[in-house]
Amino acid sequence: MLTISHRGQTMPASPIRKLVPYAEAAKKKGVKVYHLNIGQPDIETPKAALDAVRHADFKVLEYSHSAGNESYRRKLVQYYHSRGIEIDHTQIIVTTGGSEAILFGFMACLDAGDEVIIPEPFYANYNGFAVAADVIVKPITSHIETGFALPPISEFEKAIGPKTKAIVLCNPNNPTGYLYSREEMETLKEIIKKHNLYLFADEAYREFCYEGEHISAMHLKGVDDHVILMDTISKRYSACGGRIGALVTRNKQVYDTAMKFAQARLSPPSFAQILGEAAVDLPEDYFDATKAEYKKRRDLMVSRLNAMPGVFCPNPGGAFYAIARLPIDDADVFCQWLLESFSHDKQTVMLAPATGFYGTKGLGLNEVRLAYVLNVDDLNKAMDCLEAALKVYPGRKG
Amino acid sequence: MLTISHRGQTMPASPIRKLVPYAEAAKKKGVKVYHLNIGQPDIETPKAALDAVRHADFKVLEYSHSAGNESYRRKLVQYYHSRGIEIDHTQIIVTTGGSEAILFGFMACLDAGDEVIIPEPFYANYNGFAVAADVIVKPITSHIETGFALPPISEFEKAIGPKTKAIVLCNPNNPTGYLYSREEMETLKEIIKKHNLYLFADEAYREFCYEGEHISAMHLKGVDDHVILMDTISKRYSACGGRIGALVTRNKQVYDTAMKFAQARLSPPSFAQILGEAAVDLPEDYFDATKAEYKKRRDLMVSRLNAMPGVFCPNPGGAFYAIARLPIDDADVFCQWLLESFSHDKQTVMLAPATGFYGTKGLGLNEVRLAYVLNVDDLNKAMDCLEAALKVYPGRKG
Repeated sequence: MLTISHRGQTMPASPIRKLVPYAEAAKKKGVKVYHLNIGQPDIETPKAALDAVRHADFKVLEYSHSAGNESYRRKLVQYYHSRGIEIDHTQIIVTTGGSEAILFGFMACLDAGDEVIIPEPFYANYNGFAVAADVIVKPITSHIETGFALPPISEFEKAIGPKTKAIVLCNPNNPTGYLYSREEMETLKEIIKKHNLYLFADEAYREFCYEGEHISAMHLKGVDDHVILMDTISKRYSACGGRIGALVTRNKQVYDTAMKFAQARLSPPSFAQILGEAAVDLPEDYFDATKAEYKKRRDLMVSRLNAMPGVFCPNPGGAFYAIARLPIDDADVFCQWLLESFSHDKQTVMLAPATGFYGTKGLGLNEVRLAYVLNVDDLNKAMDCLEAALKVYPGRKG
Repeated sequence: MLTISHRGQTMPASPIRKLVPYAEAAKKKGVKVYHLNIGQPDIETPKAALDAVRHADFKVLEYSHSAGNESYRRKLVQYYHSRGIEIDHTQIIVTTGGSEAILFGFMACLDAGDEVIIPEPFYANYNGFAVAADVIVKPITSHIETGFALPPISEFEKAIGPKTKAIVLCNPNNPTGYLYSREEMETLKEIIKKHNLYLFADEAYREFCYEGEHISAMHLKGVDDHVILMDTISKRYSACGGRIGALVTRNKQVYDTAMKFAQARLSPPSFAQILGEAAVDLPEDYFDATKAEYKKRRDLMVSRLNAMPGVFCPNPGGAFYAIARLPIDDADVFCQWLLESFSHDKQTVMLAPATGFYGTKGLGLNEVRLAYVLNVDDLNKAMDCLEAALKVYPGRKG
């Protein structure tokens, strides 16, 4: 018999997308669905950047350099400099989204059976890339009570074994929105130095910090060879469909190895490199309006959530996600119920059950992730739905 | 010590790109280099398709569906129908180039240690994806004397073992240009049926057949579950930089499994999906001019090559590549020498040593791959260079 691969069987389906059929069914019934389940921002892609693509003058849509156009990489050097990250264009590989940066990082540094430590809840697709690379994810738990702060050193020490090769950190965090402090980043630095680990730093949401300052892993001193930055322009410029990211590292051996994987897939997409290059020239205050908008939404959503009886939502410092604890029996059941069996004024809300973001089975059962990617009016209506739903949900607890 | 992965060490560097520094040095010395080393066509990307991107009207560059825009997949169904391939849009995953289709196919069907049989010489990047997927490539040799026809069944039977899961076939072939006949495709069908193997069919050059008809693996009857088509628009529409391909299969289990890998990387690039969708509406005669141009080039190049003393080049039936046997000691040395130590009227030619396309060490030592991606005038000048070079090359043999 023709069989699919074991890794294909192990590969998790997207926890964010698995409820999509229920949402489609709800819409067919005439119910309006507010999508707080997915990190697709509604912010307009900057016109100047889109125009650069529209007006690009070439006759042949050629392969770019496998590391990305040199002109774009040189522009990125300027961008990173503006964020206090000093690197050279030969330390950047332009990737197909942040996704490919994760894959190349794993492939270049990790072998089958190697372990990576990731504070949970974490971005669910790390699991996918770990399966693709035959790598084992060792979760260590961060807790809603502390707002999902970095777990204590002792938890890392307990998880580190002979097969441990790396730590993955998403900062600001998806799904928790947590912004790691300078002290936490220094703590991490000591751990990776002491145990000789790579630090895979996912900073997709760098621009979106509302409390305090973003400390990049690339700011840390004395760990140049340890740090591999996995970046993307998807959220920064609301350009998710462009599929342009970057792997950035000062470790030449890792760079050269990742380049071999980059050469095998020939080149990253050309159109969105043009967009990314133009976007670096946006005025410095470009992010102010976007950040102000996200902050307003966050403040609204978090205060609405905490005003609901039995609900607790820590105030996230960055990104555009929050995790809330709800008075429910089972987040997967609840999120499906919201789409299948509930409506409020012909409207409902789609949330992501937090279970899919935990590596440890049984955690996140009464938690959901909310992405505040809707305008304030819609967000208010979505909160009205959630509030009404919690009053009548048959599996309400506590 | 921080170490890179074993698979990263094993990962081959691109045999096509490794001579690039020598080409750059030659250009710095004022030598014009004719690039016959790489499959970057000089054909203009169809303006109507580029214009579709330029005039696309949207405000937010959103993620597309993980399988690609439904409108594009429905258009692709029309395209495949025009090629005698009957499929449904739910049997297509739009991928990031043909490269990702190969990776998804391998990941969905093969586990670490599984074996795939590939007639050599073969597209070198199959090696890269095999390393990424921890899969072992078992080459079986096709020979220049037969124009690189399919090796006899007995060679397949010898190579098939308990770990063999698949055969990879590129048709028309890169690097040989060989176009497989209906009889050869039927032979392959019997092998995959008898031994229950997947057939990964790379048909990137489907449009470019100059002798006889293209028989797609998707035309074969009774092996629906076996065939996985790995396709791309890169060569078809001279849109290499778009990074749009497709995995097509009627095997639902493989499709569903590949979709999980597709979901993990979120979506294929949006801009070039617009281009690909518009390109399906190009007039049916669009390919005539391109094919006529390639055929003219092929005829010129092959006759020029065979007129050189000691050179043999079989006439390739498709794609835009040929492999020639030269009277030389070592193709890698020769190709480097062409760039480093030779010039003819301040011009030289860049070729790809065939060694990089063989899985068996020691084969291809006196063979090179030539891509006829230059206009007839330049191609003639490139042949002048090669002819002159062979007269003075110190490692000439035979």
